[in-house]
Amino acid sequence: MISEEIEIRTGSEQTVHDLTGECERFLSQVDGDGLLHVWVPHATAGVAIIETGAGSDHDLLKALEHVLPRDTNWRHRHGSPGHGRDHVLPALVPPYATIPVLGGVLALGTWQSVCLVDTNVDNPVRKVRLSFLAG
Amino acid sequence: MISEEIEIRTGSEQTVHDLTGECERFLSQVDGDGLLHVWVPHATAGVAIIETGAGSDHDLLKALEHVLPRDTNWRHRHGSPGHGRDHVLPALVPPYATIPVLGGVLALGTWQSVCLVDTNVDNPVRKVRLSFLAG
Amino acid sequence: MISEEIEIRTGSEQTVHDLTGECERFLSQVDGDGLLHVWVPHATAGVAIIETGAGSDHDLLKALEHVLPRDTNWRHRHGSPGHGRDHVLPALVPPYATIPVLGGVLALGTWQSVCLVDTNVDNPVRKVRLSFLAG
Repeated sequence: MISEEIEIRTGSEQTVHDLTGECERFLSQVDGDGLLHVWVPHATAGVAIIETGAGSDHDLLKALEHVLPRDTNWRHRHGSPGHGRDHVLPALVPPYATIPVLGGVLALGTWQSVCLVDTNVDNPVRKVRLSFLAG
Repeated sequence: MISEEIEIRTGSEQTVHDLTGECERFLSQVDGDGLLHVWVPHATAGVAIIETGAGSDHDLLKALEHVLPRDTNWRHRHGSPGHGRDHVLPALVPPYATIPVLGGVLALGTWQSVCLVDTNVDNPVRKVRLSFLAG
Repeated sequence: MISEEIEIRTGSEQTVHDLTGECERFLSQVDGDGLLHVWVPHATAGVAIIETGAGSDHDLLKALEHVLPRDTNWRHRHGSPGHGRDHVLPALVPPYATIPVLGGVLALGTWQSVCLVDTNVDNPVRKVRLSFLAG
């Protein structure tokens, strides 16, 4: 398994960060078929495969504000006020994704991007592990 | 990796379409153990593993209407009114699933089915890629 | 593929059950790199990778009570009152997870645990299938 950990600067505001370019760069060493595994080794971030650039990244963060409000009713009380929501996020937006790779190329649909979803404002730098499992 | 793309007619109403039969047909060429990877190359559909036939497919669509209402408050404004919700769906119901295969047979529990979840009413035909990664 | 099914007693109250120790025990027979696949062959449970021990397991169950209320408005009407919600759960908290394994060790972040999420109060014993796909 080829595997590499990269760092992504997500800053101090919640964000949806497009990882597609990083995934393509990682796969430039691959010729064959298999699965790309995207993994975030953090308890307050997830991976989503959505369209970017037409408002849906903002819409996702807004929907999450509704489902997981940034209030103080969370039992987890470390970090900034409302940070407890960030710890529930990975149950709904998992910290992994798997994507087919065909001839070294991601089999993404036209409007799909691989995105890091980070609602945690306390952690400005994130690690992402990319792995290729040949099939 | 054995990999095949099929087409599914989901029509012009939101639907939960059972893919289990298609997965079994695809695996008829497999004898050994490994993982089945189910992949939807669309930005407005997901894959869910749920029971079908006892109302839960309807319950899922209703729960999603609550979490992601079909209103006009989405920033993404292409397509039918409320279509922005469909673009958030894959963050919560991912466009992939992985299922163990043992001796060529899906290791599904008694009540589990592999389902395509398509809330998008503007796209009546969907592609699904099935891949088998031998282990 | 090395694969093993274990049993977990989740009892008659909804629970988040930490499986990390079981995953590590399973991987004690592995030296190399690959993916751990965690699979729950049930239609009313999921797998989440979250922090445990600081309240987030409770917060997850509470968030799910909000998103999927235990009321009688579900079309699925078997089991205890409100059980229909448990059948929608796996669409949002999938019954699988994949985690990188490096040198036989799970590549979990400091605060990540692999958890079985079981909101179903009618099924006190659950099966979990652990599989290792060498890469």
